[in-house]
Amino acid sequence: MYRSHTCGELRIENVNQKVTLSGWVQKVRKFGGMTFVDVRDRYGVTQLVFNEETQKDLCGKANGLGREYVIQVVGTVAERSNKNDKIPTGEIEILAEELTILNASEVPPFTIEDKTDGGDELRMKYRYLDLRRNPVRNNLIIRHKMGFEVRSYLNDQDFIETETPVLIKSTPEGARDFVVPSRMNPGQFYALPQSPQVFKQLLMVGGFDRYFQIVKCFRDEDLRADRQPEFTQIDCEMAFVEQDDVLNMFEGMVKHLFKTVKGVELTNAFPHMSYEDAMKYYGSDKPDTRFGMKFTELKEAFAGCGFNVLEDAEYVGGIVAQDCASYTRKQLDALTDFVKKPQVGAGGLVYIKFNEDGSVKSSVDKFFSPEQLLELGEKMGAKTGDLALILSGAKAKTQNALNELRLEMGNQLGLRNPNEFSPLWVVDFPLLEWDEDTERFHAMHHPFTSPKQEDVTLLDTDPGKVRANAYDLVINGVEIGGGSIRIHEDALQQKMFKLLGFTQEEANEQFGFLMNAFKYGAPPHGGVAFGFDRLAAMFAGIESIRDVIAFPKNNAGRDVMIDSPSPVHGDQLKELHIALTKIEK
Amino acid sequence: MYRSHTCGELRIENVNQKVTLSGWVQKVRKFGGMTFVDVRDRYGVTQLVFNEETQKDLCGKANGLGREYVIQVVGTVAERSNKNDKIPTGEIEILAEELTILNASEVPPFTIEDKTDGGDELRMKYRYLDLRRNPVRNNLIIRHKMGFEVRSYLNDQDFIETETPVLIKSTPEGARDFVVPSRMNPGQFYALPQSPQVFKQLLMVGGFDRYFQIVKCFRDEDLRADRQPEFTQIDCEMAFVEQDDVLNMFEGMVKHLFKTVKGVELTNAFPHMSYEDAMKYYGSDKPDTRFGMKFTELKEAFAGCGFNVLEDAEYVGGIVAQDCASYTRKQLDALTDFVKKPQVGAGGLVYIKFNEDGSVKSSVDKFFSPEQLLELGEKMGAKTGDLALILSGAKAKTQNALNELRLEMGNQLGLRNPNEFSPLWVVDFPLLEWDEDTERFHAMHHPFTSPKQEDVTLLDTDPGKVRANAYDLVINGVEIGGGSIRIHEDALQQKMFKLLGFTQEEANEQFGFLMNAFKYGAPPHGGVAFGFDRLAAMFAGIESIRDVIAFPKNNAGRDVMIDSPSPVHGDQLKELHIALTKIEK
Repeated sequence: MYRSHTCGELRIENVNQKVTLSGWVQKVRKFGGMTFVDVRDRYGVTQLVFNEETQKDLCGKANGLGREYVIQVVGTVAERSNKNDKIPTGEIEILAEELTILNASEVPPFTIEDKTDGGDELRMKYRYLDLRRNPVRNNLIIRHKMGFEVRSYLNDQDFIETETPVLIKSTPEGARDFVVPSRMNPGQFYALPQSPQVFKQLLMVGGFDRYFQIVKCFRDEDLRADRQPEFTQIDCEMAFVEQDDVLNMFEGMVKHLFKTVKGVELTNAFPHMSYEDAMKYYGSDKPDTRFGMKFTELKEAFAGCGFNVLEDAEYVGGIVAQDCASYTRKQLDALTDFVKKPQVGAGGLVYIKFNEDGSVKSSVDKFFSPEQLLELGEKMGAKTGDLALILSGAKAKTQNALNELRLEMGNQLGLRNPNEFSPLWVVDFPLLEWDEDTERFHAMHHPFTSPKQEDVTLLDTDPGKVRANAYDLVINGVEIGGGSIRIHEDALQQKMFKLLGFTQEEANEQFGFLMNAFKYGAPPHGGVAFGFDRLAAMFAGIESIRDVIAFPKNNAGRDVMIDSPSPVHGDQLKELHIALTKIEK
Repeated sequence: MYRSHTCGELRIENVNQKVTLSGWVQKVRKFGGMTFVDVRDRYGVTQLVFNEETQKDLCGKANGLGREYVIQVVGTVAERSNKNDKIPTGEIEILAEELTILNASEVPPFTIEDKTDGGDELRMKYRYLDLRRNPVRNNLIIRHKMGFEVRSYLNDQDFIETETPVLIKSTPEGARDFVVPSRMNPGQFYALPQSPQVFKQLLMVGGFDRYFQIVKCFRDEDLRADRQPEFTQIDCEMAFVEQDDVLNMFEGMVKHLFKTVKGVELTNAFPHMSYEDAMKYYGSDKPDTRFGMKFTELKEAFAGCGFNVLEDAEYVGGIVAQDCASYTRKQLDALTDFVKKPQVGAGGLVYIKFNEDGSVKSSVDKFFSPEQLLELGEKMGAKTGDLALILSGAKAKTQNALNELRLEMGNQLGLRNPNEFSPLWVVDFPLLEWDEDTERFHAMHHPFTSPKQEDVTLLDTDPGKVRANAYDLVINGVEIGGGSIRIHEDALQQKMFKLLGFTQEEANEQFGFLMNAFKYGAPPHGGVAFGFDRLAAMFAGIESIRDVIAFPKNNAGRDVMIDSPSPVHGDQLKELHIALTKIEK
């Protein structure tokens, strides 16, 4: 038996008990003829005491311990004279009687502390040491709890967790697939799933009624910051449902998670906002609704104003930053620099200060009278002491820039409290989006999303106007999940493929089995998928998904700890009927 | 709203309620001016009634329904005159008032009934229809419940479910890996994990203390019947444990599963049997202990008997079949044919009948006196009325054949009751096994398994004799899981790699990161992995794992429903820096 208790378990009630502990050496201190050793495990830290005078050999052994040595100690629990109220075991210590070194340790390349001196690259290479740090491990415990509570909720709601295959079929639609050569089927390949979309729909055709799965998915994309080639989805589907049935079910799940894992009660119904309104008022399909600062469209207000930058722009829009009329020249210059950054992309910034003294000061004073500016302020809802910020230019680009500016102002004004959660369903997404490059429509969600019944006739006349039964869950400006009511009729699905530029042959080759399934009594169905990594990061209160993943990959898709990917033996390739092509340096 | 209730929900208490149901048409019957439609969903079947006379149009519509049409019906619950006590909804029916066809169906290629007329191949091609059948869906519901209860138990025991990566590194040890070409790292490949073994050990090094995961694993093997290229493990690991800690923990888990999912209380402690005894008494490392019929070794008993088949054999062993002295010539011939089958591989069968009248009759009467045979019978524990069956030959082969014969006799005598469960821990496996082909040792479990402390010195002198801290859980002769206490010291692990024929370079290249991790304070640890598919099949009471997998592959590794694997576009291969080699026809 390696231990009778963990290192986080003993309390004042255990005084005089003989105990055995095992764990890692956190710290060794000599003080007044005594040696104190902090021994640590996942559950906590306990102080061991060795007496120089009465336990010469044992104490000498303790003095020889290095950081991260693995030890086992037998001793008696005693009350501390010098209590530490910062840790749960702080009232006691162990008077050591036996000490066994279970394993030595070299000096770790960084400190195993909440705040470590290790940089990202080093932490990833020695991830097994990084995982010993409380913040990292706690993130993964939060993730574990979330998975458990998701299952608990959905099990209570009669969902069947069903595993779908990982070795599936490549489809050129969507992002790039990872493929897997088949040894037994020469010249053929499996693909790893980008999502179990088609399989969950087939489970609905198969009468499963309510399906879910917490499942790894794969995308061979050029990795932007904070994307992983393998990621995890909470994937769900229901039969015989309309949009509101799905939203209510998963609103319940998200509330359950917040309550059980974070102790946060989200009592109100999550608001619904149309995609159109989200774009109009926030310039984003994932608005951060922890704060207002909605856009005002000002195109008409500037019609004929004589300032051609505003007059000729496709779009003019502004926001009001409360109590910011006192912004200095320097602050305003910094904001101008901010909006001009390539990632934001505005050409410039128009500001209007509505000063406390009733005066108005703007960057466009020569084009407008104070009265005109005051009128504009009124239109925007600006009050005395406020600052209006206005951008103009091409619509999509400018809305996006104004969105960035709004978020920046939210940051500057402290309106984005990480402990406040503002959930929102964004609904009524367009079914299709026009792609300028390929000059054809793409599915905004995916080709299985159903159009709104009342918009179906527009499919033939004005496909770009068709709204979908599609929805996203957004919390604090982060897209947490999304889904749709699916097409379940063969004819409509065929029409959709055609609109998306599939030939009959392509559609059959790639989705023939789904089309076939639809011929045998497919029920109406719909679902949702949540990004588990992203949701876990939000619950852990961190920005990056990397630290809610035990063994993440870097931006080049490499696992630097195991040094993967790596070359494989030629024999192996031969068996798989493939060869490397010449690699250009 | 598609439904107010499911098709399995309404009872006599609901009479006079107005309800809406949705589901599939199971059956349409006309009888005495009425049309009866059975509508089905996952939850059950409910009878709908249409009146020819008073609802002419509606009834006509009902008469036009085909099997597997998806319908929605609004109606009022009524008490049936003709009750059906075989189904929970059998006391009521729905007087239909509205009928909507949600989707039509072609005639399905096989019947959607508990016993279908569809063959395996057809069922797999139309798996989405097969999944509508109660037995298949119920198996998957059992699997879901098992997964849920595994998590529930392990969560209560402070295990952290942690996802390990799917895109890892290829290692030539073990079975063949599936590999995944990396687009971003030309000429390099990921591999799919055969198990998360190394990662779970790293989590122990990382202080996670208790880890589990229900996880997909992959093996590119030539598929024997009932193997799948992707399969699911319940994968577990614990730190600071000895063998008994692990066995007790997971014995608890298995008991919990039996109790909560099958309602079976396994109250006794699971017996432990050494590998040596398992081989000696059952000729198998996974004995079916639902019945006795243990082997008696008879080599010495036959020394100098004059019958060279028995005298010269490396091994002679026998079993006693109770009350089988009455077996006929024909039955005994059939047993002889059975043991001579190539899969069993014995040369012949010796029998001795201990007749009810006290006489003895054997196939070797000319070599032995009745007294000698009675003495032999006594040695074997045979009683009057019993039949002794004896095989001889090379040891391993003959033990195996006798094992097959024992199981066959168990079947014939009805001793293998599928509703009785006999769990057993097989322990003390050999660490290494000698491979005649390569003339070197292989790890019997895997290269990370630790030798028994008392056998460590044998590593240098007689490695084949070293016993491992390795264990298997066997239930009813099926290996359900296995594991070991791992090596946690760098030096011992290096020695092990050397014994297994790895050069220093190979060991470093493949497992350098693990060796490295062991330098920084690896705790003692061990674990176990259960074959989830196999365990689910046992709980479902079926032989094959295929019907506890929603979308299984066939013996050629193909998914015949989606027709995968399949060729991919040349562009895709080019991006991946690979080309097909010429395929020999």
